[in-house]
Amino acid sequence: MILRLVDYKKSANIPCLLRTIFSVGPKLRDTDPRRLSLFHCSTPGLPHSPRRNIHSHSGPSRRAFSSHHLCVARSSCPTPLLSDILDHQRPAPPLRWYSTTASSFAAPLNTEQPSHRRTHLQSAKMTAPGSFRRKHKVAVIGSGNWGTTVAKLVAESTNEHPDIFEKDVQMWVYEEKVTVDGETRNLTEVINAKHQNTKYLEGINLPTNLVANPSLVDAAKDATILIFNLPHEFIGNICRQLKGNILPYARGISCIKGVTVTDDKIELICEFIGEQLDIYCGALSGANIASEIANENWCETTIAYNTPPCDRHVANGNGHANGSGNGTYEEHRDSRGKIIKTKLTPVPQNYPPLDHDVLHTLFSRPYFTVSMVSDVVGVSLGGALKNIVAIACGFVEGHGWNMTAKTAVMRRGMLEIIQFAREFYPETIEPATLWEESAGWGDMIVSCTAARNWRYSKMAVERGVSIQEIERTELNGQKLQGISTSREVSSFLRARGVEDKYPLFKLVDGILDGKVNVNDIPSLFRK
Amino acid sequence: MILRLVDYKKSANIPCLLRTIFSVGPKLRDTDPRRLSLFHCSTPGLPHSPRRNIHSHSGPSRRAFSSHHLCVARSSCPTPLLSDILDHQRPAPPLRWYSTTASSFAAPLNTEQPSHRRTHLQSAKMTAPGSFRRKHKVAVIGSGNWGTTVAKLVAESTNEHPDIFEKDVQMWVYEEKVTVDGETRNLTEVINAKHQNTKYLEGINLPTNLVANPSLVDAAKDATILIFNLPHEFIGNICRQLKGNILPYARGISCIKGVTVTDDKIELICEFIGEQLDIYCGALSGANIASEIANENWCETTIAYNTPPCDRHVANGNGHANGSGNGTYEEHRDSRGKIIKTKLTPVPQNYPPLDHDVLHTLFSRPYFTVSMVSDVVGVSLGGALKNIVAIACGFVEGHGWNMTAKTAVMRRGMLEIIQFAREFYPETIEPATLWEESAGWGDMIVSCTAARNWRYSKMAVERGVSIQEIERTELNGQKLQGISTSREVSSFLRARGVEDKYPLFKLVDGILDGKVNVNDIPSLFRK
Repeated sequence: MILRLVDYKKSANIPCLLRTIFSVGPKLRDTDPRRLSLFHCSTPGLPHSPRRNIHSHSGPSRRAFSSHHLCVARSSCPTPLLSDILDHQRPAPPLRWYSTTASSFAAPLNTEQPSHRRTHLQSAKMTAPGSFRRKHKVAVIGSGNWGTTVAKLVAESTNEHPDIFEKDVQMWVYEEKVTVDGETRNLTEVINAKHQNTKYLEGINLPTNLVANPSLVDAAKDATILIFNLPHEFIGNICRQLKGNILPYARGISCIKGVTVTDDKIELICEFIGEQLDIYCGALSGANIASEIANENWCETTIAYNTPPCDRHVANGNGHANGSGNGTYEEHRDSRGKIIKTKLTPVPQNYPPLDHDVLHTLFSRPYFTVSMVSDVVGVSLGGALKNIVAIACGFVEGHGWNMTAKTAVMRRGMLEIIQFAREFYPETIEPATLWEESAGWGDMIVSCTAARNWRYSKMAVERGVSIQEIERTELNGQKLQGISTSREVSSFLRARGVEDKYPLFKLVDGILDGKVNVNDIPSLFRK
Repeated sequence: MILRLVDYKKSANIPCLLRTIFSVGPKLRDTDPRRLSLFHCSTPGLPHSPRRNIHSHSGPSRRAFSSHHLCVARSSCPTPLLSDILDHQRPAPPLRWYSTTASSFAAPLNTEQPSHRRTHLQSAKMTAPGSFRRKHKVAVIGSGNWGTTVAKLVAESTNEHPDIFEKDVQMWVYEEKVTVDGETRNLTEVINAKHQNTKYLEGINLPTNLVANPSLVDAAKDATILIFNLPHEFIGNICRQLKGNILPYARGISCIKGVTVTDDKIELICEFIGEQLDIYCGALSGANIASEIANENWCETTIAYNTPPCDRHVANGNGHANGSGNGTYEEHRDSRGKIIKTKLTPVPQNYPPLDHDVLHTLFSRPYFTVSMVSDVVGVSLGGALKNIVAIACGFVEGHGWNMTAKTAVMRRGMLEIIQFAREFYPETIEPATLWEESAGWGDMIVSCTAARNWRYSKMAVERGVSIQEIERTELNGQKLQGISTSREVSSFLRARGVEDKYPLFKLVDGILDGKVNVNDIPSLFRK
């Protein structure tokens, strides 16, 4: 349930308010506090609060209350304000209103909506999902280990939710020959016949509604949800091929962790995809190991998706959502807080709204818990920069230091990631994404105790060789992501003269250069 | 360096201000941003900002700028305001003032302090430490594994800083007979002769200025700094013996992690000590394993110490600090934000000020990095409640789930700890202590991957026996802290009807009862 709390004083004691709400109604106890918005009305001119999920707004408006299933007005709200809000609210019946006065809680405030004002399009959330004419079509671009795993789980979901999604999920497969049972065949044919990706995810049964497709353009055709999951060096080329061949209102989720960093700039990969394809693209990242998820071992992840304003199916009283072709919708802002150049095409209203709920439904499995946020910066930077920290942790552990020392390095690394996000994305970063979400601390812990960058940097120190040597001897020339990220980030920081503010990042770069010794790590932590 | 930034607009863009400061002067680059206070002047009536380290104040005052080594006034500050601040500042020369106008940065604003106004007592921080007549005497109460380790490191520090501390550190030892080299002797005699605690920290050489003392009262006599480090079940009895036998202006640091929880109330152990002895007592906690620190393997910790107002050596123009016996000092508040009942006796002015700097000096070693905070709630609750999470992680891992699942449990556990702190200590909790400090995420990670509660709960599931059975067979009847904490906390939450808000805590309690199966853990994470 998403809940919105209406309060009319900015000075309200928020923990106290939350306690009131949660103690008042048992129905509200199930609400995840992170899905609760506190909304200050009638305090004109207040800036947006930096506090997560707390928004200020001068006076009620329809848009303010859209996409929230339940609204609670604080009992201290003056009746005229409440009437005003309810009046604005009238055209959008999905919301139910409660007052936090305990006695009045049992009865919603607005059960008496004039039924003639409810329209199919306005009340998206109340409409039975099956009543939408169109369903979302999902395509997965990429079919490696992680790509096939994600394709498996979303295909399971589309199969379970035929009211929202078309059953078949297309998966674009870079065609290659594989030998199965002594016979050489195309990988796509093997996947579609045996329902196993014998090359990249052997032994895992895939749903029969997951269709391998060797044609990128054909796989993406008519898809409203494109899931990108391939090595990041290929993404530019893929976007060039897709451009102009996808639905103008398609939306993306990038499972490619990371950012592109040059001396000139940093760019989130999801935003790069969005720009290239003139669509909006969110990001998925978390403490995830593909083979474990493929085996349905339970874990969790974070999806960052800042639903474009034009997709927030908001009734405006005339039966059409804002932005449904009349050009009046609010423009979308990027991770720098700037209005994006591309004018997004809204997802048509005859599809179920493409928002957090739909994406949550698509990616969630009993063995895969999904948490939705709007902060693409936190999720993307966490996913990229933690690899630098994992390299440092490998050095520390390889050197014989113990878990307590490694933990100190992780903690320092997390502080530098947040500092980096605050320095270069001050407009939209929500540090809570890194403190609280799987894409933050969760991913950090797994990366520094059970993943590649950590494992091979540890091995390098233990064997007394360079990490580049390990790449040659152990990884068959494959590159460790943490090394290139460290190089690029250090170069970027140096170009700005701020590398001294990131002592751990600087130190990892120095160790990779052979100019600094692992023994110097504790000196970072001294005054 | 502690730095204070003065700004006169509340609306200032804080990240931008910080960038300005750090880019302006190379001297400031070394400043830890967490030791920086942003101070808003001339905006009367603003409440304290919830944001860490940002304080609002209506107009300049002396106290506002005390204990900060360096002040930076923003160039946008109007000259009259600046003059006013500087004028107030005059009597306290330790501060140096800079303006953030780049060109003026090189020259401090107030180098021309009238020298006749400097007095010994007013300018504590500028006075060479050796010029204080008295030095702090340190006593460690407790001599187990962890007690002896802490005694070792503080004795090394007192030896290094004879200007601040008396060299000898007393360690109270519960006297018992030990057999060394075939001879039965008193433990205190062995420690003082061999400089090893052969019973509890064998093989570790202790500084010769660490003196074992079998008399509790004699060990604590004349000590200004009492470090409590013994099993928490003994603390009540120890306090009864100490009461009336310590200096009235002694201060404490509790290394006993935890809280006392009954159905009626929760009490922080450090506050319990403070109340029993009529002194103020802070808390030390972090990702620490005693034997590793004893072996001088590097790690880090957090000390929470909310310096009592009466100890903040503030010049008031007449050569005496506030509170130096004239009863005018601001009263100290506890973790609930209430004025404490006991009237604290200020640390006399002929001692070096007993504040963050002195405690940092006392506990820091090259192999032991200390971070100081004021939030005793975050440090105490983190240290206690993480043991419940560690038990859950042991269950998960013993059950065969992997690191990604365990990480999800840790993340959820941390969210519940913060929720608990916000619910029961809303007045003073700073969640950043748990997100950022060693006593928060650091301790959580170590406890869930390398410590007792995790290890033995994992063993119980692996062997298919109850954890109580493991206590009997593996721990010789010793109790796991996490079990009693889980029981007490669950009972406390049940008594308030809020246990459903803490699903992980509830689940651990249910598993300990044998009423819930470990398999049910992922169900917590589903909507």
